[in-house]
Amino acid sequence: MRPLSGVQATQSTALEKQLAFLREIDRLKTVVRQSPLLDKSRKENSAEHSWHLAMYALVLNEYACGAVNTNRVMQMLLLHDIVEIDVGDHPIHGGYSSKLQAEQESSAAERLFGLLPQPQCDEFRRLWKEFELAETEDAKFAKALDRFQPLLVNIFTDGGTWKESGVSLEQVLRRYGPAIKKGAPQLWAVCERWVTQYFSGQVPE
Amino acid sequence: MRPLSGVQATQSTALEKQLAFLREIDRLKTVVRQSPLLDKSRKENSAEHSWHLAMYALVLNEYACGAVNTNRVMQMLLLHDIVEIDVGDHPIHGGYSSKLQAEQESSAAERLFGLLPQPQCDEFRRLWKEFELAETEDAKFAKALDRFQPLLVNIFTDGGTWKESGVSLEQVLRRYGPAIKKGAPQLWAVCERWVTQYFSGQVPE
Repeated sequence: MRPLSGVQATQSTALEKQLAFLREIDRLKTVVRQSPLLDKSRKENSAEHSWHLAMYALVLNEYACGAVNTNRVMQMLLLHDIVEIDVGDHPIHGGYSSKLQAEQESSAAERLFGLLPQPQCDEFRRLWKEFELAETEDAKFAKALDRFQPLLVNIFTDGGTWKESGVSLEQVLRRYGPAIKKGAPQLWAVCERWVTQYFSGQVPE
Repeated sequence: MRPLSGVQATQSTALEKQLAFLREIDRLKTVVRQSPLLDKSRKENSAEHSWHLAMYALVLNEYACGAVNTNRVMQMLLLHDIVEIDVGDHPIHGGYSSKLQAEQESSAAERLFGLLPQPQCDEFRRLWKEFELAETEDAKFAKALDRFQPLLVNIFTDGGTWKESGVSLEQVLRRYGPAIKKGAPQLWAVCERWVTQYFSGQVPE
């Protein structure tokens, strides 16, 4: 965009950066996850997954374990996967090195949020880091939903990624349980019933 | 899900409704819009479009014409297209009857938000209606972004839907201008430059 003079020049520069960021994150729509859509027509992408998680937060906030700020949780979930534009999605059943993944995602956060004007860059990086650390009430609930949604998808697509990857009941309990239990214990109670039904050959309801 | 007794039964019923809603809205990922992705690899769907718009609101809230509550704007944008699950997307260059569309969308809002427990159903229907009416500051800004994002996409995909549908400069100014000008005049100033450049054969910058 054409630079302008005086006060407008500063605004224009900030806006240019913001538009560059918004254009760059269009690429999240091309990051394909392992999870299918519920109609099994194709795999889900990380942008629509982020939309759905924000809706989960809006609808299910009453089941958060602690006192949460639903709007902060939604903001976290909207931007939690943006780093995947640079590093891709690493499924929890993939066996990828979590230390290497954390380093790569940190660099990605620096580059991608770094496209924004400084105050917004700092704010988004803080929110993303808070989500990753999963220590605050908001982040614990956000993390719980980020595990709950794909579990629900697997339950209602006849096993989804579990069937594909030969995942056992014990692995499901270990990989999803702690995060969901910590952030949303009432939702975990539902999951336990579903998972037991699924792995004993019943149709989950 | 299995009904429980006493206090738990009430909670379980609410949660059942909420999960039914969250499963139903998975279908928004299969509603295909006219707009392409920026890399032109395919058309955008309404779920990822809604994610992107919520990010637009988070990033660009300083350009709202009035005093807005960014979180309410984000909530509006996350759920503004859910009615398309029943009625599909009606592109602004499609010439579809807006009266008929409004009636169909109103029924869709009743059915879809009606899957939720009453208080949430009422809250979401109010937010959706507020967006449609575009009278409050929040709704005016949300509407402006809902026009601004596809305009930006057309500009940076060499004409996008305008080229496909043979849309003229005058039609662009009439179909996008009023909503963007009303909710985010500074963004309209950028659009005017882009549109002028595009329709005079220059590469917009």
